Amino acid sequence: MADCDQEQDAQRTVFVFDCRWESDDGRERSARAVRIGDLDFPAFLRAVTQEFSIDSEGTFVLTTTDRKEITAERFAELKDGNTLHLLQSVDQVLPTATKERILFLPHYDTLIKSGMYEYYASEGQKSLPYALAELIDNSLSATASNPDVRTIEIRLLFDESQGKPAVVVLDNGCGMTSKQLNNWAVYRLSKFTRENSTFRSDHADYVRPCPVPRSLNSDISYFGVGGKQAVFFIGQSVRMITKPASSPDVHELVLSKEEFERKEKNKEDIYCGFIRNRQPGDSSHISMEEERFLHGFIREELLKEHFTAVVVTGVQQEHIAFLRSDFYTWTRELAHVYHYYIHGAHGNDRKSTYHDPKMTKINIQVCLMERSKLPRMLNLREVTDDMQTLYINSAVDTFEFRAHVGGDGVVEGTIRYHPFLYDRETYPEDPYVITTMPADDDDECVVVSHEGRGKRPVFECYWNGRLIPYTTISEFEWCAWPKKSCPLPVECFSRISGVLFANDHFQVSTNKLTFMDLELQLKDKETIFTRVVNGQEQRVKIQKEFFQWLKDCHEKWDKQVKFMYFQGTTVRTDV
Amino acid sequence: MADCDQEQDAQRTVFVFDCRWESDDGRERSARAVRIGDLDFPAFLRAVTQEFSIDSEGTFVLTTTDRKEITAERFAELKDGNTLHLLQSVDQVLPTATKERILFLPHYDTLIKSGMYEYYASEGQKSLPYALAELIDNSLSATASNPDVRTIEIRLLFDESQGKPAVVVLDNGCGMTSKQLNNWAVYRLSKFTRENSTFRSDHADYVRPCPVPRSLNSDISYFGVGGKQAVFFIGQSVRMITKPASSPDVHELVLSKEEFERKEKNKEDIYCGFIRNRQPGDSSHISMEEERFLHGFIREELLKEHFTAVVVTGVQQEHIAFLRSDFYTWTRELAHVYHYYIHGAHGNDRKSTYHDPKMTKINIQVCLMERSKLPRMLNLREVTDDMQTLYINSAVDTFEFRAHVGGDGVVEGTIRYHPFLYDRETYPEDPYVITTMPADDDDECVVVSHEGRGKRPVFECYWNGRLIPYTTISEFEWCAWPKKSCPLPVECFSRISGVLFANDHFQVSTNKLTFMDLELQLKDKETIFTRVVNGQEQRVKIQKEFFQWLKDCHEKWDKQVKFMYFQGTTVRTDV
Ligand SMILES: Nc1ncnc2c1ncn2[C@@H]1O[C@H](COP(=O)(O)OP(=O)(O)OP(=O)(O)O)[C@@H](O)[C@H]1O
Ligand SMILES: Nc1ncnc2c1ncn2[C@@H]1O[C@H](COP(=O)(O)OP(=O)(O)OP(=O)(O)O)[C@@H](O)[C@H]1O
Ligand SMILES: [Mg+2]
Ligand SMILES: [Mg+2]
Repeated sequence: MADCDQEQDAQRTVFVFDCRWESDDGRERSARAVRIGDLDFPAFLRAVTQEFSIDSEGTFVLTTTDRKEITAERFAELKDGNTLHLLQSVDQVLPTATKERILFLPHYDTLIKSGMYEYYASEGQKSLPYALAELIDNSLSATASNPDVRTIEIRLLFDESQGKPAVVVLDNGCGMTSKQLNNWAVYRLSKFTRENSTFRSDHADYVRPCPVPRSLNSDISYFGVGGKQAVFFIGQSVRMITKPASSPDVHELVLSKEEFERKEKNKEDIYCGFIRNRQPGDSSHISMEEERFLHGFIREELLKEHFTAVVVTGVQQEHIAFLRSDFYTWTRELAHVYHYYIHGAHGNDRKSTYHDPKMTKINIQVCLMERSKLPRMLNLREVTDDMQTLYINSAVDTFEFRAHVGGDGVVEGTIRYHPFLYDRETYPEDPYVITTMPADDDDECVVVSHEGRGKRPVFECYWNGRLIPYTTISEFEWCAWPKKSCPLPVECFSRISGVLFANDHFQVSTNKLTFMDLELQLKDKETIFTRVVNGQEQRVKIQKEFFQWLKDCHEKWDKQVKFMYFQGTTVRTDV
Repeated sequence: MADCDQEQDAQRTVFVFDCRWESDDGRERSARAVRIGDLDFPAFLRAVTQEFSIDSEGTFVLTTTDRKEITAERFAELKDGNTLHLLQSVDQVLPTATKERILFLPHYDTLIKSGMYEYYASEGQKSLPYALAELIDNSLSATASNPDVRTIEIRLLFDESQGKPAVVVLDNGCGMTSKQLNNWAVYRLSKFTRENSTFRSDHADYVRPCPVPRSLNSDISYFGVGGKQAVFFIGQSVRMITKPASSPDVHELVLSKEEFERKEKNKEDIYCGFIRNRQPGDSSHISMEEERFLHGFIREELLKEHFTAVVVTGVQQEHIAFLRSDFYTWTRELAHVYHYYIHGAHGNDRKSTYHDPKMTKINIQVCLMERSKLPRMLNLREVTDDMQTLYINSAVDTFEFRAHVGGDGVVEGTIRYHPFLYDRETYPEDPYVITTMPADDDDECVVVSHEGRGKRPVFECYWNGRLIPYTTISEFEWCAWPKKSCPLPVECFSRISGVLFANDHFQVSTNKLTFMDLELQLKDKETIFTRVVNGQEQRVKIQKEFFQWLKDCHEKWDKQVKFMYFQGTTVRTDV
C-alpha cells in the first residue's frame, strides 16, 4: 500500500545513470540510487563523485533526462524517484540507453470532470434528469433482490435554513460492505473486473441475469463510472452512506473536489481516502453548520436494516434552479425512463386491472423541500402524461414482434396503432418537441402538422428495461410505407408508435444516452424478425403480417366523418 | 514514489482498531499497526494480545471492517494495509467510529477502454477516421511553431512480411521531453493542469492562442485524453517515440493492454512504467521478430532534429480491413476534417490563385503499404471531392457573418449560394448520405429529391479550425424560409450551404465528435449577428441583409430555361 500522507522528504532518493562512456560489455547499465534527503548541493556532488569513483580531475555534469543541468537551485527541486544522467557534457550522445521509471496515475479530473462532458444537452433537452437516472439505476440494481417493496427516494434539500443545498438519492437496497464502498470509488472498476471481498474464498463472480420479459432485469450497470460521473456533474462533493444487511456498521465515504485540489497542492496521494465505519445513527462527526441537515438524516438509519444514501452537495446553482422550476418536466422525464420498471412489463395501461403478482413494487419517490414551503412530493407512478403512458392509452391495438441478431442479441418490440377518430388524429403530441416560433409571427401563420406522428421516429429504445433517451429508430423497412403498390393509405403509417426492448447483448455509451449500434445491428440482413402472438413467436413474413395488421386496424378503427354536399343553413323552427 | 515492483510481503502490516469498548474520553481511537509479514496465525493472535494487553481470560474476535471473522485461512489472504476491528463478538455494536484507509486508483480500463465507447459509429458513419484525427490533432499542435513545412505522415504498415500490422502517425513537430512524454501517459492531465518540467523555475503555463482567422490556431487539444483514447481504439499497444530539439536523446515509451493485464495478475503497480532514453537510430532493444519493421523506422531518426512517432500495434482486424478497402472514404473524410488547415482560411478555391504567404504549409501525407503491392500514397491536399471543396467550387457567391455570444465566444460564418443552372440544381450531392433502397424495388420507383440541399442541415461546424463531425446546425431564424410574406421563392433557401468556425470559447465533447452547446448558445436571444463585408463587421439587420443577398443571387445566378408553348414537331428538311 502506498503511503498516504507521510512526508518522505528525508528519504528522497534519485537514480543516477552513468552515461559518460559505454560499459565494457556494451550492455545497458542500471541506475544507482543516491540518497539526497539531508544533503546540500556540494555534499550531493561529493556523494556522486564517491559513488561513481570519479577522481578529482574528472569533469562531469549531472542532468535530468531532459538534459537540464542540475544546478544548486534545481537540486532543491528534485523529487523522490527522479532519474538523472551523469555525462561528460550536457549535449554528449548517450552511449547506451537508460531506463527511466515513471508514474502515470490518471489525474483526479478523471473522477470529477468526466460527468461534465458526458451529460451535455442534446437537441434542447436538459441532461440533469439523466445524471439522476444513473443514481436511480444503481438503486434499482441494489434493490433487485429485495423481497419486499423497493423504495428509491430522491430528496432535494433546498431549504437553506437546514444547511447547504443537497441532492440525495436514498434506497432500501442491499447496501455496500466497506470493500464494496471502496470499489465504488474506483473509476472504471466494473462488475466484470472487481473483487467483492478481501478474501478470494468469498469471491462471487458476476452472473449474467436470466432473460425476463422486456429485459426488466434491474441489472443496469456496466462501466463502473455512472455514479461518479453523475455526482460530479450534479455537484462538487459526495457523501456515500451505506449499510449492508450483513454488518451492524454503517460505512461512510466522502469524495470532494476541494479535497482533491488540496491534496494536489500539498503533493499528497490523490487516490487515497478514509472510510468511516460507525454505529447507525451516530452523527457525531458532522460538525459543520452547513451540513446540519445530516443529523436528522443519519438518525433515520436506526429504522433500517440496509440502505444506501448518496448525498451530493456543492450543487450547481443552475441545477438547483432547474430542479425547482422545471419539477414537472424532469419528473415526467424520469417517469418515462423507468416506465416499465414502475408499471411492469405491460406499462401503464389504465384500462387494464392486471398486475403482475410476481413483480415487487418499485416506488420512486421524489421530494422537493424548499424554505417555508410545503414539501412537494411525487411518486413517479402517479405521473400520467409521460410519453409511454400517452402512447399506451391512446392505442387501440398492438403488434408484437421480436428481433434476433447474431449471438444472443434479442430485441422485443411493440407497435401501437393510434387511429383517426371523426375529426382528428389521436396520435399523442410530444410536448418535448420544441417548435421554434419566430417572436413577431402572427398566430395564424403557425402551421401545425396534423399527420399523426409527423416527422418523429417510430421507435423509442429501452436497454435492460431502461430508456436510452437519445437513440430512436425511425422505422424498419417492413413497417415503412413502401411508396409503391401499397393497398394502404400513407396516413396509416403515420399512426403507429413503437417501443424496442434490447437486452444486454447490445452496448450503450458510457453515459447511457445512446446505443452504440442497435440500429446497425437490427438493420443487418442477418437479423431475423418474428411476430409474437400471445407470447408465442411465429416465423412469418413480417412485412405481410404487419400490413395485414395495419389494414385491419385501419378498417376497424379509423373513423372518418365527412359532411359533404353542404346545402345551406336550415333554421329549425320547432324548438 | 510508490515502489513499482518490489515484493513487500515481508513487511505486510495490518491496522487494528480496538472496538471492544468506548475509550475513556469517548474520543475516536487510532489504529495500531501490527506487522504480519513473517507471522503465522497463532503468532499473529499472540501479537495482538500483547499489543492490546489482553489478559489470558479476555475473549475477543478480529474481523475485517466487513465483519468477516479472521480465521487461519483468511489470515493468509490479508493484504498489506488492511484494516481490522478488534471486537468482543462479531456483531457487537461499534462504540466509536473507525477510520479505514482506502485506495481508489482508477482501473487501467480508464486508459484502454475509454476509446472503445467514445468512437462508436453514429448514423452509419465509420468512426475510425475520427480516432486518427485525434493523433493528427496532436501533430498539428506539435508542429504549430515549425518555421518551415509541417509534415504529418500516416503510415499503414500492413505488409505482414515486415512484422505485425501497425498504424503509425509521424510528425516533424517539437517532440516531447521525457517529462512531457510521462505527462502524455497521464489520463486527463491537460494543458491546463500539467507541469512541463521537473523544475518550477522552468514552468511555462498554458497561454491561450491569439485570435486568428477562422480560429486556425492549431491548438486542438483540451482534455488530456485524445491520444490515449485513439490508440487504444485502434489497437492494443502503443509505442511513443519522440525527440525534442532541446535534447540529443530520443525518448520511448510503450503502453500495452497485455502488460497492464500481466501487472494486474501479478498484483504489481499498474500505473508505472519505463521511458527508454537512447541515441537516435539505436534500435538494439527491438528484439521481437514481429517488430522488425521498427529497425528501418528507427534508423530514419538520424535525419531528424525533432519528431514524434505514435506506433500502434495489435490493430483490430476490422480496422485493417476498413483502412485497406475504404481508403478513398476515410482519406476524403480526413481531408474534410482538416480542410482549412490544409488549404488555408479561404479553403480549396480552385479558381483562386491566392495563397496566404504567412501560412506555413501543412502536409498530411497518407501511405498504405501492403504485401507485394506498390505503396499507395496520398497527400490530403490532393483530395478534390471532399464536401468543403465541392461546396466552395460550386458556389457563385458568399455571405459572411459573425456571431458574438456572451463572454469571448466568437463564431465566424459563411453562407454560399449554389444556383440553379438551366436544367438542374448545382448543389453538391453528399455521397455520405445513405439512401436505404429496398432490394426488390424497381429503379423507377426511387424518387431522388432534387430540391438542392434537400433535408440536409445548412451548417457544418468547425472548432479551432477542425471539423466537429457530428454537430450540424439546420439553420438560423434569419436565414430560414419565413413561410409568410417572403418575396423569394422557397427553392432559393435550399440553395445555400454554410460553414461555422467556432473559437475555443465553445466546448466540445471529449471525443471531439460533437459540440456541447454551440447551437443553444448561438440561438440564445442575447447572441448578436453581424455581417462581414471585406473583413469589416457591420451592425445591420442580419435578416434583411441576408434576404437582399439571396435575392441578388437568385436574380443574378439562377438560370431557368423553360420551353413553353409546345406547338408540335417540325421536321427539318434542310439537313
Ligand atoms: N445505491 C447503491 N447500492 C448498492 N451498491 C451501489 C449503489 N450505487 C453504487 N453501488 C455499487 O457501486 C458500483 C459503482 O457504481 P457506478 O454507478 O459508479 O458504476 P456501475 O454501476 O458499476 O457502472 P455504470 O458506469 O454502468 O453505472 C456499482 O456497481 C455497485 O456495486
Ligand atoms: N505528436 C505529438 N507531439 C508532441 N507532443 C504530443 C504529441 N502528441 C501528444 N503530445 C503531448 O501529449 C499530450 C497528451 O495528448 P492527448 O491527445 O492524449 O491529450 P491532449 O491533446 O492534451 O487533449 P485531448 O484530449 O483534447 O486530445 C498533449 O497535450 C501533448 O502535450
Ligand atoms: Mg451505475
Ligand atoms: Mg490530443
